[in-house]
Amino acid sequence: MANKDCVGVRVFSLNCWGIRYLSKHCSQRYQMIGEMLCKEQHDIVLLQEVWSEKDFLYLKTKLTSTHPHSHYFKSGVIGSGLAIFSKHRIHDTFLYRYSLNGYPYMAHHGDWFGGKAVGMAILNLAGLTANVYVTHLHAEYSREKDSYLSHRVVQAWELQQFIRHTSTGADVVIVGGDLNMHPKDLGCRLLMSYTGLRDSYVETAKFDGCENGMTLIADNLFISKNELIPFEKGIRIDYILFKGSSKTDIYCDFMSTTKGSVPGHALPYSDHEALTAELRLESHIPAQTGSDKTQDTPTEKLAELVDTLTEARTEVKVGLHCAERMRYTAARTGVMGLALLFLELAIAAVPCFALGAEQPFPRISFYLLAALCFAILLTTFLLYIFYTMELKSLQGAEDQMRLAAGSLQEKLRGFSVTQPHSVPQRSPDGEQPCALDPEE
Amino acid sequence: MANKDCVGVRVFSLNCWGIRYLSKHCSQRYQMIGEMLCKEQHDIVLLQEVWSEKDFLYLKTKLTSTHPHSHYFKSGVIGSGLAIFSKHRIHDTFLYRYSLNGYPYMAHHGDWFGGKAVGMAILNLAGLTANVYVTHLHAEYSREKDSYLSHRVVQAWELQQFIRHTSTGADVVIVGGDLNMHPKDLGCRLLMSYTGLRDSYVETAKFDGCENGMTLIADNLFISKNELIPFEKGIRIDYILFKGSSKTDIYCDFMSTTKGSVPGHALPYSDHEALTAELRLESHIPAQTGSDKTQDTPTEKLAELVDTLTEARTEVKVGLHCAERMRYTAARTGVMGLALLFLELAIAAVPCFALGAEQPFPRISFYLLAALCFAILLTTFLLYIFYTMELKSLQGAEDQMRLAAGSLQEKLRGFSVTQPHSVPQRSPDGEQPCALDPEE
Repeated sequence: MANKDCVGVRVFSLNCWGIRYLSKHCSQRYQMIGEMLCKEQHDIVLLQEVWSEKDFLYLKTKLTSTHPHSHYFKSGVIGSGLAIFSKHRIHDTFLYRYSLNGYPYMAHHGDWFGGKAVGMAILNLAGLTANVYVTHLHAEYSREKDSYLSHRVVQAWELQQFIRHTSTGADVVIVGGDLNMHPKDLGCRLLMSYTGLRDSYVETAKFDGCENGMTLIADNLFISKNELIPFEKGIRIDYILFKGSSKTDIYCDFMSTTKGSVPGHALPYSDHEALTAELRLESHIPAQTGSDKTQDTPTEKLAELVDTLTEARTEVKVGLHCAERMRYTAARTGVMGLALLFLELAIAAVPCFALGAEQPFPRISFYLLAALCFAILLTTFLLYIFYTMELKSLQGAEDQMRLAAGSLQEKLRGFSVTQPHSVPQRSPDGEQPCALDPEE
Repeated sequence: MANKDCVGVRVFSLNCWGIRYLSKHCSQRYQMIGEMLCKEQHDIVLLQEVWSEKDFLYLKTKLTSTHPHSHYFKSGVIGSGLAIFSKHRIHDTFLYRYSLNGYPYMAHHGDWFGGKAVGMAILNLAGLTANVYVTHLHAEYSREKDSYLSHRVVQAWELQQFIRHTSTGADVVIVGGDLNMHPKDLGCRLLMSYTGLRDSYVETAKFDGCENGMTLIADNLFISKNELIPFEKGIRIDYILFKGSSKTDIYCDFMSTTKGSVPGHALPYSDHEALTAELRLESHIPAQTGSDKTQDTPTEKLAELVDTLTEARTEVKVGLHCAERMRYTAARTGVMGLALLFLELAIAAVPCFALGAEQPFPRISFYLLAALCFAILLTTFLLYIFYTMELKSLQGAEDQMRLAAGSLQEKLRGFSVTQPHSVPQRSPDGEQPCALDPEE
């Protein structure tokens, strides 16, 4: 392959504020986002707070032609909310769930249920291995009395660990997301100084966007001014970060943010501003075919790997069905508990209306039955949440396995072109479970 | 540095079965393990099921002179149970918690509470970067009806992902632990084929130990024969795996296991057999000073990093105190709820003994009070568990930060020797929070 000296990469990042039924104009905004992404055709799109998988699938369908490769990172009760769309093939993905993420009883803050995490995708950009990360850290609800500070610092610590340890082999590292930290905040400094990542807003040659690169601004109609106090104009908490390697230099030629409103539309895309960075990669060394740690693996080994992977996917699917059934049973039992409680209350209510009538059943049984109903409701609720988390983890693993299988099949196809007859051609659809002839 | 052509590394792995008060002869066995490790002086010791931190600290004290470097990986409610002791300096550590790990209501199996994980430590072995992993996967309680199979497969999947993505820069990879899988099991195949790891039992030139390398054997007096059916003699579920890199070849010259009993002792070390592998590393390329991704960093940057790290540790410690206080409050409230319940039961019991006496308080208040007590007990119990998990995560992060700070200070000391007066000498004790003069 020839010496690649210059590659341009356009990266987009947006916190979509996609809480169905709660975030304002959610579906309308997703439509706007989808149209804009179709038009702009960024190389890499990093989205946060895509809380509903339905919305991810909506975007996926909409972006089929412009961004054929995508991944949705599943975790926690609701999900990580992280999604990536790419023009370039995603070879591998990995998710790291932060060990600390708020408190389950702070349900109105909701962070705990979101299962915040950092997702990684390995892409091949014109022969260079790019490790792309998308993340969303715990929100800061009060700057003066930030009871989640230690959690966010630990998240920043784990983020830098994850990036540092997983990107050793990468030619380029790109990180996008809502860090919920101001540029000089402890977590930010920890992340930047440990990893050597550079901030595209600081590094860019040309900038067009909000003052000081702010991404949560008073001019956004979804933002109440009181939320921002004491920062009247806004704050900068969303970032696109990058770094090169000994093999590749990376520069930011241009960076932009949206400015609260979208020309030609009544609404902004989100309560956060969207970020776009135009990066330029310059590689010194003749590029190799990149990212492939399995590229030296002989065909037989690859075929064996595909078989093992298929078997593993089957096993995970069995687990999925099992968890689904258990969750369904928990839900059904819960509904029965609720029905029993209503029935009891209805029977108990009769004497109140028919004054003077005798209480239909003894008090002790009444209270015991009520206690039983509450116990059933609580237990089934906890079980339902637990099985939902289990399902997400199983689905997440299955998704990653499917992607890995697709990537391996691609490689096998490559082999079968150069070494005809050695391995049968496969369908490009990673979705389809494959069974290799064992005699291959 | 001269061309290192040959380095010998002795690796030890043991599942310690260290459940305080439940595992048989626990403290006696730890004493035996400590003495043996002192005598044998392996380069790297990988332990699993060290459930109590007290036992880890006991071993740490005992091994101060032979294995000055150690790390205990904290996670989950109880902990990961993973520990590493090393003759060589540990430069960096990282922990990955498996997303699936059994069910909390299967309390008698206990895996969920253990928070199973894989721990990584980066060592420098005579100029070579060694990524060392220790792990323990979910137990298999029934081979016929293994309801945790999908969980274990996902754990194996995440294990291979973690190893593969974090070891790109390593010259040597060493993995030790209790995989709870037979050699031909799906998870094992997934792990081995994806990562290219090799099994020291299969690869060793010379072997001394149990038949077929078994590590859970009928001859161990802690094992009941019924547990092993249908494998009368035993099974092989503990492993030491390894692989080299383009820079380094790795061979296993000798491998051994204990054989159920320990000569000169009445007890075995554990219900599992201990594994020892003698590995030989051969590097092709003149070795560098290894693992250090920060080695090109100028002194000022390093000093700044140390400052940031110190600040982060302080923040995490604040969080730690806060979580400790909350946990204490939860425990105290729980105890009060329990006392209230006993008081109520005592009052209610009076009429039973003094026959004919009137019930001292109305039934409805009795049941309401009892329900309140139960609600308090349940809530405080859940909160206690939650805060314990939070504490473990915070402690884990703090430990890793301390280690990292120690490593950075070491590097700064190196600088100050080569560049006198540029940076003040620091105490070798990573424990001590340090404050660099900003004008340095």
